[in-house]
This record gives sequence, C-alpha cells and structure tokens, in this order.
Amino acid sequence: MRCRKCGGSAALELRRHNAAFCSPHFIEFFKKQVAEAIHKHRMFSRDETIMVAVSGGKDSLALWDVLIDEGYRTAGLYLDLGIFDYSVESRAKCEAFAARRGQTLHVERVAEAVGAPIPEVQKVTRRPTCSACGLSKRYLMNRAALEHGYPVVATGHNLDDEAATLFGSVLHWQTDALTRQSPALPSTHPKLVRRVKPLYRLSELETAAYAFLSGIDYIVEECPFATGATSLSHKELLNRLEESSPGAKHNFLFGFLDKARPAFERMEEVDLRPCSACGQVTTGEICAFCKLADLVKRRGAGRAPADNPAPEPAR
Amino acid sequence: MRCRKCGGSAALELRRHNAAFCSPHFIEFFKKQVAEAIHKHRMFSRDETIMVAVSGGKDSLALWDVLIDEGYRTAGLYLDLGIFDYSVESRAKCEAFAARRGQTLHVERVAEAVGAPIPEVQKVTRRPTCSACGLSKRYLMNRAALEHGYPVVATGHNLDDEAATLFGSVLHWQTDALTRQSPALPSTHPKLVRRVKPLYRLSELETAAYAFLSGIDYIVEECPFATGATSLSHKELLNRLEESSPGAKHNFLFGFLDKARPAFERMEEVDLRPCSACGQVTTGEICAFCKLADLVKRRGAGRAPADNPAPEPAR
Repeated sequence: MRCRKCGGSAALELRRHNAAFCSPHFIEFFKKQVAEAIHKHRMFSRDETIMVAVSGGKDSLALWDVLIDEGYRTAGLYLDLGIFDYSVESRAKCEAFAARRGQTLHVERVAEAVGAPIPEVQKVTRRPTCSACGLSKRYLMNRAALEHGYPVVATGHNLDDEAATLFGSVLHWQTDALTRQSPALPSTHPKLVRRVKPLYRLSELETAAYAFLSGIDYIVEECPFATGATSLSHKELLNRLEESSPGAKHNFLFGFLDKARPAFERMEEVDLRPCSACGQVTTGEICAFCKLADLVKRRGAGRAPADNPAPEPAR
Repeated sequence: MRCRKCGGSAALELRRHNAAFCSPHFIEFFKKQVAEAIHKHRMFSRDETIMVAVSGGKDSLALWDVLIDEGYRTAGLYLDLGIFDYSVESRAKCEAFAARRGQTLHVERVAEAVGAPIPEVQKVTRRPTCSACGLSKRYLMNRAALEHGYPVVATGHNLDDEAATLFGSVLHWQTDALTRQSPALPSTHPKLVRRVKPLYRLSELETAAYAFLSGIDYIVEECPFATGATSLSHKELLNRLEESSPGAKHNFLFGFLDKARPAFERMEEVDLRPCSACGQVTTGEICAFCKLADLVKRRGAGRAPADNPAPEPAR
C-alpha cells in the first residue's frame, strides 16, 4: 500500500475513503477533517477560548492536541466521576497532557455536585449507569463553561460514537434525541453554551491512530461501567455493516445530517427556562440534574467518603 | 409453556408479546392482528374485491387464506417471473390453492410485459436482480388491478420484510422511500390503485406458523436470486437485535410509523402524470418500467423462448 499523497509506504488504509496514507500525511488528513468540521458548522472562531472536555481517552486528548496545534485558545475540563482507579488514572493522563502542552486544566468532582460518585449514584437510580453519568457530564460541562466564561464546549465524540447514538435513537425513533443529534448545538438560551464535536468526521480507528502517531499518552482501558452498554453493542453491529460495505457508518450519519435531520427539527420546539433549584436551563420546573442530586440525597448515597476508591470490583 | 387464552399446552411462544398460544388460539391471534391492520389503516371494506398478489410462498398464501376465511371478496394475482423451476413450482402452488378454495387466480407473465424473463432482464441492467424484479412486480400488480377493476392490491409483506426495508432506507436516509413506507398506500391518482400490507403486524415466524398450522401447501425455497441480497443481511442483523431485545423490530417499524413518518411525509410532494409510452402513472415523462422494457429490447435480451426453463443453474 502506498500513500495517496506522496507515494511512500502507507501506515494506514482508510477503506471508506478508498485511500491510504503515510504517517505525516495521515496527520495532515486528520487535521484537515477537523478544520472542515469547524468550518462547515461554524463551531468557533479564533477569538474565542474553547473549553475542551477531556476524559483522558484517545478521542478527547487527540482533539485537544489538534486544537492547540492549530493555534486555537483552549482550556481543558476534566470531570472526576469517582469511578475507582479508572478515574484516578484518567485524571493523571489529563493533568500530564495539560502540563506538557502548557494548558489550563479545570477539574470538577461529580461527587461534590451530585452528592455521590457515579458508582453510588448508579445504585440509587434504576436507569443504566451511562444514563445518569451522561446527564451529569452534560450538566457540569455547561455549568463549568458558564462559570469560567467560555462560550463553547468541545467534546471528543467521533464518527463511531455519533453513528451509534443515532442508531440507538433510530431504533426507538426518539424524535427529541434525533433533533439534538448534531455536530454543533447552538446556544438557544443565555445560560446554555454551544456544544460542538469537531471529531464527528473521524472514525474511532482514526482517532486512535492519530493519538498513537502523535505520541499522546492516553488511558486505554474503557470505563468499567461500559461493559455490556447498549452503545457498545450498537457499535459492534455498525462495525459489521461497515466491514461488508465500507462507508456505511459515514453514509448513515452524514445522510441523516443532510437529509433527515431538517425534517425532525421542524417537529420539536422546546421552551427553555431556569431550573427553580439551580438556575441552569430546563424544559420543566426542576432540571434533571437537580432531580438526580435530590434522589441521591434522599436515598442516602454518598455518605461514605467519596474520595476513596471502593475496594470491591466495579461490577 | 401454557396458552395465554386457555391454559392448554402452548404450540408457539411469542417473546415480543410475552405470550404463548395453543394452535387454535394462535390462529385466532393471527387473524385478530390482520383484522386490526385492516381496521386501523382502513385498508378495504367488505364491498370491495381485493386483489391478493401471491407468490406461492407462506406469507401471501397465508394472507389470502385469512381474507377468504374472514369472508372478504378476493381474487389472486400470480406474476410469473420466468425464474426457472422456482417459477414453475410456485405457480403450481398458487393454482392448487386457488382451486382448493374456489377462487379466481389471474396469471401474468413478466416476460410478455417487459420483453424477457427476470434472469434475462437482470443481465441487461446493472442493478441487483431484486431491483428490476420489484419494479416489474409493482407495475404489473397495478396494471392488472386496473384492467380487472379491483380497487386495491394486498401483498404478503410481513413485519420482518417491512422492518428490513425500513432499515435499508434508514441506512442511506432515502427520504422518498421513507415517505412511501406504509402498511397502506392510498390511491393518489385515478390510475393508481391502493396498495395494502395486512400482515405488517406479524413476523415471518408467525406467518410460517400460520401457514403450517392451517395446512397451506406453499413453496419453501427462497427465490434463487435472493441469496446474498442486502435485504436478507439486514434481516439477519435485525434478528440479532430482536434476540437480545424482543420487540426491537416491532418498536423500530411501529415507532417509525407513529412518530417519524409524518415528518418525512411533509418533505415529499410528488406530481404524478401518465407515462407517455404506456399511460400508467409516473413522476417523469416515461415510467421506469417502460425504460426497463426498452433497455431489454435494445440489448437484445429475451430472444430465446422465454417459456423454457434455462438449463444452466440460476446463479
């Protein structure tokens, strides 16, 4: 295999692009895709400081890396979920990265905000762990950005993440989720910052290759709660489709964004107002995060010191 | 396992309904689902004669069987595709069924209308066989119904068929196909009869069980051209989803019909007019069927006598 650009020996084949690249030209390709995403969806300008939500994994650190390289003003946000060793290690990866690149890293502890670390929160809700965790992360990302004055939060969601989320929403035709599925969610209220996903054009394999080739030190382990998550089985299923027809994931996600999303957008009109408990925006009276925090409090979770990694296994 | 209705020994478990039935109560359940489909979508009334398109397979013969039992006025339509022994055998099954139930069966030969049998047609088009075949069937069903004065054509499409078609359309977000996906397509032009799918609430397993328990003699073999068809791999994939979460197919199809289809319907407005070659309706100048027939003629397919099953294997 030869690099499409220079004819040199290729390091990576991208079947859905019917192309192969050597290391330097793959890095160039990767950065171009990020630039294209930012440009196409007018995600942010060079006058703004972008808050990059980092988990310590390959995607978010690759994103932060590209944005710094491309000269954007950035700051990192690490949300400490209190998930035993996994959180300890992933936080260390983020801190090391920030130090190496001379960037600010904000750290927020979920346990402080919601009243207990995620493993305790999970026990008091009947929903899957990922559900309460995702809710908490979205809430805290927005709150942190508002507090520090950043107009936009960038997350490391890649093509595989977005396609799997879309797949899940489509299986149940969750029209509200379909309306929100976008690489760039605008601020529709003064208390809601923009949310953007500059890696949505790049696959999981591509972000992994970028992180590896750029020498980024990231946490390889998956979150211990992810095992058996529906999103993973959807990813597997999409991978099978991709194998038999390269580009299937891309066509599924991009076809939705181009052709179908406009149809759903017209269906959903939501009215945002301040949560009467915390002041962040909600469509109801009390926001979902405050309801969760209240549940945690009433059920008595989080009484054990939240700092100590639990001795028992995660599952 | 016990029958949900009578407590007797169950013959069939329906996981997505969290139920099991003995033979007589399964037949009752099956007929109720057909009645519900007819009623919900106002498919036809008892004053109308329904043309049932039959292939000789379990689904269409089960449908015809139920409609006769329920006292509807029906006539069958068999489209002879000229697919070697498969067509010979499936036609014999339809003729035997019609004779046994004392019903009229119309037979149309695709080779006569399009100029060559399907295996020859396939050779001159670059599209998959199922594509030209489906197009020809839809065209001839409509033409036959108009000629004989039937206001509505009923086909044997089941839940699995409909979910697989929807899945294929969703993977590419074919908004025109999504608009047309419905258990009941109205007549939007005097030259277009209604098309209905009274089995859309019943799975492939359920129609097979009905056909077996009712003693219907149907052709078990699949069409030889179906091997490797995309629709089959989509069915497989949906079956895997269904296995891990019973009701997945049902939720996918019904969720679409209830929640998402209205969004697409607003997107598509088509203008129908008579084809300048054959007079049936089209959105263009010449309809797709006449274009196909013209291609068959120009490429010289169909010169061999279309009646003789070809001696070579089908694939």
